[in-house]
Amino acid sequence: MRPEEAFDLGFELEEWGGRVLEGGTITSVEGISAGAASAGLRPSGLPDIALIVSEGTTGAGVFTQNLAKAAPVTVSMKALASDGAIRGIVANAGCANASTGSRGIRDAEAMQRAAAERIGAPKDSVLVASTGLIGTFVPIDSVVSAIASIAPEESLDAGHRAARAITTTDTVPKECAVVFGAGDWEITVGAIAKGAAMLEPSMATMLAFVATDASLEAATLRRLVRNSASKTFNKMTVDACMSTNDCVLALATGASNLGPGEASPADPDLDAMQKAFDYVCASLALDMVRDGEGSSRVAVVRVRGAAGRGDAERVARAIAASSLVRCSLYGGDAYWGRVVSEAGAAAEVFDPASVSVSYGPFEVCSAGVATEAWGSKDLARYMTASEVEITCDLGVGASGAVRVMASLGPGYVDENMRTS
Amino acid sequence: MRPEEAFDLGFELEEWGGRVLEGGTITSVEGISAGAASAGLRPSGLPDIALIVSEGTTGAGVFTQNLAKAAPVTVSMKALASDGAIRGIVANAGCANASTGSRGIRDAEAMQRAAAERIGAPKDSVLVASTGLIGTFVPIDSVVSAIASIAPEESLDAGHRAARAITTTDTVPKECAVVFGAGDWEITVGAIAKGAAMLEPSMATMLAFVATDASLEAATLRRLVRNSASKTFNKMTVDACMSTNDCVLALATGASNLGPGEASPADPDLDAMQKAFDYVCASLALDMVRDGEGSSRVAVVRVRGAAGRGDAERVARAIAASSLVRCSLYGGDAYWGRVVSEAGAAAEVFDPASVSVSYGPFEVCSAGVATEAWGSKDLARYMTASEVEITCDLGVGASGAVRVMASLGPGYVDENMRTS
Repeated sequence: MRPEEAFDLGFELEEWGGRVLEGGTITSVEGISAGAASAGLRPSGLPDIALIVSEGTTGAGVFTQNLAKAAPVTVSMKALASDGAIRGIVANAGCANASTGSRGIRDAEAMQRAAAERIGAPKDSVLVASTGLIGTFVPIDSVVSAIASIAPEESLDAGHRAARAITTTDTVPKECAVVFGAGDWEITVGAIAKGAAMLEPSMATMLAFVATDASLEAATLRRLVRNSASKTFNKMTVDACMSTNDCVLALATGASNLGPGEASPADPDLDAMQKAFDYVCASLALDMVRDGEGSSRVAVVRVRGAAGRGDAERVARAIAASSLVRCSLYGGDAYWGRVVSEAGAAAEVFDPASVSVSYGPFEVCSAGVATEAWGSKDLARYMTASEVEITCDLGVGASGAVRVMASLGPGYVDENMRTS
Repeated sequence: MRPEEAFDLGFELEEWGGRVLEGGTITSVEGISAGAASAGLRPSGLPDIALIVSEGTTGAGVFTQNLAKAAPVTVSMKALASDGAIRGIVANAGCANASTGSRGIRDAEAMQRAAAERIGAPKDSVLVASTGLIGTFVPIDSVVSAIASIAPEESLDAGHRAARAITTTDTVPKECAVVFGAGDWEITVGAIAKGAAMLEPSMATMLAFVATDASLEAATLRRLVRNSASKTFNKMTVDACMSTNDCVLALATGASNLGPGEASPADPDLDAMQKAFDYVCASLALDMVRDGEGSSRVAVVRVRGAAGRGDAERVARAIAASSLVRCSLYGGDAYWGRVVSEAGAAAEVFDPASVSVSYGPFEVCSAGVATEAWGSKDLARYMTASEVEITCDLGVGASGAVRVMASLGPGYVDENMRTS
C-alpha cells in the first residue's frame, strides 16, 4: 500500500512529479548533518543520542496535546516561542524525561546547552526530544558527554545512525526522503521518526524530525508541518494512548536557495511543498503503524456516508481504537459486527438499516445485515494479507474520514506488561 | 474486596443491616421462578435459553446507549414503553440477534410470544435479551421449541440453571441475593448476570436481571435500577467497547406485600431499597470485572482532587480504558507514568507539579515526580495481589470518581481474535 493511498492524500507522488529517494533519510537534505552516540541509556550499549544540525535558521514543531508534557517538550516549545534561529535537534531514547519536575527541565536544558555548544549556536536555537520510560531521570552527565562527542556528518549513513539512535521498541528505523522540481531546480524533504506504541491521538509517543532544503519562513514551515501532521500522524491509531513526549520537529536549511514562488513561476509553490511534506509524513506514519507493537496487520479504515465531519472522524477513531476490532484484525477475522457496534456507539446520527461494511472488495454487511460474502473463502484469503481495507458506510450523509490502524496481538501485552 | 467498597457506595452492607444470602440467586426472591433449556446454540449442547417468570406485574429496564441496538433491546424497550404488566424475561446466549434487520425483530418477537404463551400472559409482558455473535440469526424454530419446553421452578437450583444458561465467555455464573428488614418484615433483592467483554461504557455486553419481592410501581423500579446501574455497571471497564445488547432488566413481584413506607414507618424506605439494589448490582459488576476476558487482576481506580466532576470521571475512565495501564496491571507493574499520562491527556485542568499516584498504601509519585516507594519490594509484593487500588490525586480541586477495571492479558486476544 502506498502512503498517499493509505492516508487519502488526494494525489499520487509520481503522477504529481515527486520521487522517493531510495535509502533516503534526513541527511538527504542539503544543509543537514547528523550524528549519534551512546550515553549508556540502552542495555545493549548501542547509540541512544541523536544530533541533527541545520545550516539554516528556520524551525517549527507540533507537540503532544497531553497536559502532562515531558520536560523536552516544554523546553522545545519555549525555544520555538522565542522566534529566534533554530539550528538543530538533540534527542535521546531510553528515558522520556517526563514526570520529572524541575530537575527534568534542568536536564533538558543541559542537553540543549550541550548540543548548542557542539554546534556553536545559542542555547535556544536547539530543540530537544526524548522517548522512553516516564518518571525516570536522564543520567545527565553521560548524556552531555555523549552529545559533546558527536561529530555531525552530511552522509546518508549519518542520517541512518541518527534514525536508529531514536528507536525504542521499533523493529526497524523509519526514514524517508522525496524530491520534486522542474528542470533547473529541485527541492528535497527528508525525515526520520520512531514509533511504536502510545500512538494516537494527536501523535502519541512518536518523534519525527523533518527537514527541507527549501528556503522558508518559520510561520510557513509551521503551517506545512501542522497540516501534514493532521493528515497523517493524527490519523493513525496503534493503541489509542496519548503520550507525554510526542513531537514533529521541522528544519528548513534554505540550502537550495529556493522558496515558494521566489525565483520564477516554475518554482515550488506552497501546494507542492505541502504535498512533499504530506508524502514524507504519510510514509513515516504508515511505517509506524506497520511496526506497531505486537501487531500483525495494518488496516486502513474508511468511513463514508456520515452525517457530518465530526461523526465521520469519531466513528473512524472508534473503530481504529476498539480492542475488539483490533483483536479481530490480528486474527484475520472479518467480524464486521464489531465495526457496526463501534459505529453505533460513536456516531450521533446512525441508522442500523443503512449501514454497510466492506473488507477490501467484499461487502459483508449491506443495509445493516450480513451478506453471503461473509464467510466466503475469497474473503478469508483476502484477510490473510498484511494490509487490508475496512470501509464502513453509514448511509446517512456525505462525510468521510480515514484512519490507519494496527492490530492487537499478544506481543503488545508482552511488550507492555513489565517495564523492568 | 467488598462490592460496596469497590464502587464507593458509601455504606457497608452489614452495618446498614443488609445480609448476603449465601448461594443466593434471582429465585431467592419470592414470586420469581426460573428455568433453562437448550436450543442448540452452544457447541456443547448445554442450556442456552433462560426464562424468568414473575408473579408480579412490574418491570423496568436500562439499555445500551449504542445506536446499533440489537433486536431484543428494541423489542424490550417497546414492551416497557407500553406501560403494561411485565411478567417475565426470556434470554438466549450464543447469538446477539444484532445487525439482523427486520428478520431479527421478528425473531425477537417470536421469542417474546413463545415465552408469553408459556407463562400465559400477553406478548408485551415479556422482556427479551440476547448475547453472543453479532450479525447472525437465531435458529428461531429450535429456540421457540426450547422456550416451550421450560417448566419454571422457584428453587435456587432453577435460578442457578438460568444464570449458567446466559453465560458466554464467563468462566463462572454471576449471582447475588441480599435481604434486609426489621423484625416483622423482610425484603429480598436477587439477581443473575453475565459478562465478560465489551464491558463499558454504559454497560457493554452484559445482561443483568434483578428481581425483588417488594411492591413497587414501575417508575420507582426504573429509578432504582437506573441509579444502581449508574453507580456500578457504568463504573466498570473491561475493554472500553460498548455493546449492542446490554441491558439491566428488573422485576418486582410484590410477593412480600411491602412497598416503600406503606405498612408502617419501619417499612423499607426508598433509600433502603436503593442500597439493596446498589449492593446487588455492585456485587454482579465486581464479579464481571473479576471474570474479565484474559484478565489476571482487578484494580479500583480512584481519582481525587479533580477540578470538577467531569474531569474526575474522564480521568478515571481514561486510566481504566488505557491499553497500557491495563497491560501494566496484568504484569503487576506499578508503572505510574502511564497513569499520569492518561490523566494529562484526559483532564481539562491539570498541573504536572500537583499530581500524585498511589498503589494501595504506596505513594509512588508525589508532586509530579517519582518517590522512593517506586521500585520497593513491598510495592512489588502488593502488586501480586489479585485486587489492587490505584489512586490518582490531581491536586487541583475537590472532585472525585471511581472506576473498577480489568487487566489486559494475552488471553483477551486469544478469546477475541477469531469468532469462528
